[in-house]
Amino acid sequence: MAPGIWKATIGAPEAATPVRSRRVPPALQGLGSLAAIAHCPLPIPEFRITQRGTELNLPLAEGELMYGFGLQLLSFQQRSKKRTIRVNADPKVDSGDSHAPVPFYVTTRGYGVLIDTFRQATFYCGEAHPKPTQAESASSLEVNTPQRMRVRDRDLQGSVRIEAPRCAGLDVYVFGGPTMLEAVQRYNLFSGGGVLPPEWGLGFWYRAEMHLNGDEVLKLAESLRADAIPCDVLGLEPGWQTHAYSCTFAWDRHRFPEPSSFIQQAASEGFRVNLWEHAFTHPASPIFAELVPFAGDIAVWDGLVPDFAAEGGRRVFGGYHGRELIDRGISGFKLDECDNSDFTEGWSFPDNSRFPSGIDGEQMHAQFGLRYQDTIWDEFRKRGTQTYGLVRSSGALAAPYPFVLYSDLYDHRQFVRALVNSGFSGLLWCPEVRDASSAEDLVRRLQTVVLSPLAMVNAWYIRNPPWKQMDRDKNNRNEFSEGWEALQARCQEIIGMRMQLLPYLRGAFARYRAEGVPPFRALVMDFPDDPSLAAVDDQYLIGDRLMAAPLFAGEAVRNIVFPPGQWQDFWTGAMVTERKITVQGSTRNIPLYIKAGSLMPWAEVGPHTGAAEARRLSVRVYGDGHRRWSAPHAAGGLQLAWQEGKGGVQQPGSQKRPFVVTGWERIGS
Amino acid sequence: MAPGIWKATIGAPEAATPVRSRRVPPALQGLGSLAAIAHCPLPIPEFRITQRGTELNLPLAEGELMYGFGLQLLSFQQRSKKRTIRVNADPKVDSGDSHAPVPFYVTTRGYGVLIDTFRQATFYCGEAHPKPTQAESASSLEVNTPQRMRVRDRDLQGSVRIEAPRCAGLDVYVFGGPTMLEAVQRYNLFSGGGVLPPEWGLGFWYRAEMHLNGDEVLKLAESLRADAIPCDVLGLEPGWQTHAYSCTFAWDRHRFPEPSSFIQQAASEGFRVNLWEHAFTHPASPIFAELVPFAGDIAVWDGLVPDFAAEGGRRVFGGYHGRELIDRGISGFKLDECDNSDFTEGWSFPDNSRFPSGIDGEQMHAQFGLRYQDTIWDEFRKRGTQTYGLVRSSGALAAPYPFVLYSDLYDHRQFVRALVNSGFSGLLWCPEVRDASSAEDLVRRLQTVVLSPLAMVNAWYIRNPPWKQMDRDKNNRNEFSEGWEALQARCQEIIGMRMQLLPYLRGAFARYRAEGVPPFRALVMDFPDDPSLAAVDDQYLIGDRLMAAPLFAGEAVRNIVFPPGQWQDFWTGAMVTERKITVQGSTRNIPLYIKAGSLMPWAEVGPHTGAAEARRLSVRVYGDGHRRWSAPHAAGGLQLAWQEGKGGVQQPGSQKRPFVVTGWERIGS
Repeated sequence: MAPGIWKATIGAPEAATPVRSRRVPPALQGLGSLAAIAHCPLPIPEFRITQRGTELNLPLAEGELMYGFGLQLLSFQQRSKKRTIRVNADPKVDSGDSHAPVPFYVTTRGYGVLIDTFRQATFYCGEAHPKPTQAESASSLEVNTPQRMRVRDRDLQGSVRIEAPRCAGLDVYVFGGPTMLEAVQRYNLFSGGGVLPPEWGLGFWYRAEMHLNGDEVLKLAESLRADAIPCDVLGLEPGWQTHAYSCTFAWDRHRFPEPSSFIQQAASEGFRVNLWEHAFTHPASPIFAELVPFAGDIAVWDGLVPDFAAEGGRRVFGGYHGRELIDRGISGFKLDECDNSDFTEGWSFPDNSRFPSGIDGEQMHAQFGLRYQDTIWDEFRKRGTQTYGLVRSSGALAAPYPFVLYSDLYDHRQFVRALVNSGFSGLLWCPEVRDASSAEDLVRRLQTVVLSPLAMVNAWYIRNPPWKQMDRDKNNRNEFSEGWEALQARCQEIIGMRMQLLPYLRGAFARYRAEGVPPFRALVMDFPDDPSLAAVDDQYLIGDRLMAAPLFAGEAVRNIVFPPGQWQDFWTGAMVTERKITVQGSTRNIPLYIKAGSLMPWAEVGPHTGAAEARRLSVRVYGDGHRRWSAPHAAGGLQLAWQEGKGGVQQPGSQKRPFVVTGWERIGS
Repeated sequence: MAPGIWKATIGAPEAATPVRSRRVPPALQGLGSLAAIAHCPLPIPEFRITQRGTELNLPLAEGELMYGFGLQLLSFQQRSKKRTIRVNADPKVDSGDSHAPVPFYVTTRGYGVLIDTFRQATFYCGEAHPKPTQAESASSLEVNTPQRMRVRDRDLQGSVRIEAPRCAGLDVYVFGGPTMLEAVQRYNLFSGGGVLPPEWGLGFWYRAEMHLNGDEVLKLAESLRADAIPCDVLGLEPGWQTHAYSCTFAWDRHRFPEPSSFIQQAASEGFRVNLWEHAFTHPASPIFAELVPFAGDIAVWDGLVPDFAAEGGRRVFGGYHGRELIDRGISGFKLDECDNSDFTEGWSFPDNSRFPSGIDGEQMHAQFGLRYQDTIWDEFRKRGTQTYGLVRSSGALAAPYPFVLYSDLYDHRQFVRALVNSGFSGLLWCPEVRDASSAEDLVRRLQTVVLSPLAMVNAWYIRNPPWKQMDRDKNNRNEFSEGWEALQARCQEIIGMRMQLLPYLRGAFARYRAEGVPPFRALVMDFPDDPSLAAVDDQYLIGDRLMAAPLFAGEAVRNIVFPPGQWQDFWTGAMVTERKITVQGSTRNIPLYIKAGSLMPWAEVGPHTGAAEARRLSVRVYGDGHRRWSAPHAAGGLQLAWQEGKGGVQQPGSQKRPFVVTGWERIGS
């Protein structure tokens, strides 16, 4: 296929698969720059094609551990589990079901496997052994289990037993490493390379209460500016859902009598506007009649289900969005409800519904989020403009897509685990802040979200920011908490840190685009041979030199494990001297660590990313500063070096808005 | 098929289905005694057979509500939901998955539908409407939804959209009513009639801590007698699980050096012994070599998966149980782990594993519990003895089976809902008591379990009864709570009530056997036209005249709804004058109500059901006592009448142990 990528075709694969339906080509240049690998790390798979579908077995070595399968909220290391790759809106059980499951895994032996199917494939990860055929020695009887629990068999040889139902064949892609990180890079580059979001997309986002009218949204935006809360994007609901909940995509004219003027006023204050929607199209929508021939046979909420797998469906749906919304200045969308509902009410279209493009509901669910993103993204691409938005479902080969996943679930630990897991499968995840059970909870959640792909407070059910009042009813009655100003100041500082970190983050994303390195990723991805990191799902790497260990409200202490190498406390510069430490749960700042000797660009805090402050930066110097920093691929790219007690800056290429380094600050001794 | 039962065959059904694999014939005599129905209540179904499987549509009328689908713990009325009939050990999401899902539903229009498949069928219950094809009036836009919630469409016509995967046809059975109760009766009689458990099975059960040795178990049994806690059955674990957790079915000889003598000693004190096990057979088991040819291709916990669908598998596995255990006096078994594990670790055999009988893992999971029950039950039947046991999985046509379902989950409300739901699908459910969060919780759980098919405390992880100490560690250190005697007295009284109720319960089960009327069932089953009962999933009918409304710990008040007719408080005889009442959460006794004018047999409390006390009863007389009571089908059957201020008794047929009525007690005024 490409250097270090192998493909095995079993039987007669279906026409609709992630790779065969792909709409972004592989990033060949990036792939070419990775080291070549002589031999495929896996043998040709054993397989069997029956009326059930296609089955195959891939080997696992002793102690080999598995990661991936997309946006898993409930587990991290996947060996010993059964995973079903099925799209689901409420992944409350650890079954593999997820908003964005991906039939892709990587292992500590340094390779990745993509099963190229939109079917609800099942992976039995290493525990399905053939039946014993000889009596074992009676000695095995001597140790009875004290609890009713069994010994795990991770230390045995095994196999991944995979079944893709209802297909008479499939393609299997193997991504070589030789390291786990390089296997992920290859997958991401094969997907088309990671997304580099527009700068404003990496700023701070605020979603307004769903009933606010245009004037109220603008007033809210003003108050953010007045309170010196940086903000780039306002999210809102245009009120285009009907009584049946399907959408018309026509603004509620009572709340937004002049949308264009509203968008322009927001823009004049440096705000972009992002609109909530879902795809199910009500008969009263202006696109209804044109969409009927490009819709599935079953309604959702009395609305059409657009066939986004068909060019016509994308054209009708996307074209309207382009003309009526993007051309008027909308920066992006929040694509809701595009997953599925096996664990809730079964509100979405059935797996056996039919679409004009020839696929069934099962195949559509696996790509509805992907093709919905395509539909919207296409309109921006046609116009040569960038977007960055939110989506509730995604799938395989999604690395290039400018959309970030979110969930209606709200467990902080799960949100961090999702962030850690997302990096294995080319996904981005937003651990959004909605409300909080306490000031501590609010601060801890906010500290996490500003160290994520999309820094957002989603206040869709409270009229004021949560730091002004955490009680929902009181918030909506505009009654603020006593002492809210202090909490707001804390939150302002945390959001400010997002702005300070932006040049660094943008550099990390640039590397995602060019080299496929996930900007947010698990420790084990960079250090697969370190057993102490194999289960760490609540710490993560950011870019090439930072590691975060979020605090969770209500916990007295926080244990932190360090990867090999020398680390310094980001805030104080203190050297970390142990591989495992414990910090107090009351620690003010989020525990954040930097590789010893690093340079770190640190921007000033302005009202939004377009402001002049975003281009003025000091450089934090840790230790001897030998670890240079560069973001050559990013617009406004920049290289920093530190020699003999003085800084050095190089600005490669042409820049519209060059950086100005205002100073160099030594952190710690 | 039979009076009031219709069968439609679509395409070419599989050989392995619930009906085609049935091992108990229909109860033709009972079916013959139900009223004939002229016309099938449903039209011939629309269907489609494709490579996905077999799909069909069945109509739903406006307002028609659906119940059933087996042991659903998380929901009650099923219209508007998607249900997947998939066996699962940890049904923590409302997806249809369950220990004992059944592809059978009944509706308020008074009929039932069985989809005869072991495949993981999916039911879209009424929400999958065809896509709209005409623009509706713009008026539908005017009312936007205040929350992001939609209007339900139960009030519309609709259809149940059913898909059975991987089969090229199936049989559909329709059970006429004309009432919902009669539709359920027909289903149960078609299944072979309900089980009538042995009398001892309806006594009190106590499962001992898993590590106790024979002497300790006997000492525990003695202490129950000394404390005057009635008990018929002791459950225990013989220690035959290995380090890998698979079983040998050979007693741990350290703990039980002489099993036969142990069983005899227990029997001499009036105790029967029930043994825990699961089916996965370790290589060190005496049956291993003989079982190898009758096992699936994949191991579970390094053990064989017996092919219970094959006569040979049942013979090897069951034969050993007969010779080695049943012949030595074991009364029954607790068949654990026979469900599946999609939501946990995937520990069970894969859906695509293969069995010598020709079925795959998917088909096996749907019947593993059923055929496991057959395997064990066969051995008792061969010997002409009765059994009553526990099983963690069951399925379609299970009404005649002498096994009661249980779960490792432990939510009291869910346990009551499971009891209420079980009656729709021919299942029995045990809301077992393990431990409790408070004395109140213990009392409330115990009050529920004594009004269920199997009254059991399952103390498998505590060495002493929970009423002596609720803290697990202290319990296992034999440290009792202060004042435990008072709590024990409360529990003793509640368990005593079970013994008092036994003649009535046995009558209710006799009617289950003869007429198919579930002894425990939802209010809506008897009163489908009353909308106030349509969602009542925490009250239930017991037999022909009792209604229970369990209390749940920590709730200040309890709302109770009454079915049509006149009701009296069971404890006081007070007439209920409102259709809806509220009782205090602190109420001492479980709220229990009896149809006005009822007679109720009320036994004395003895140490076990074989004791003389079980045959001495007073009769509780409510109001004018016009509602006679009879249990003509039950062994020891009895008819009670009350006329002109004096009692009347008739003992029909021959009885080994006749009842003695010791007195008549007027309850209330």
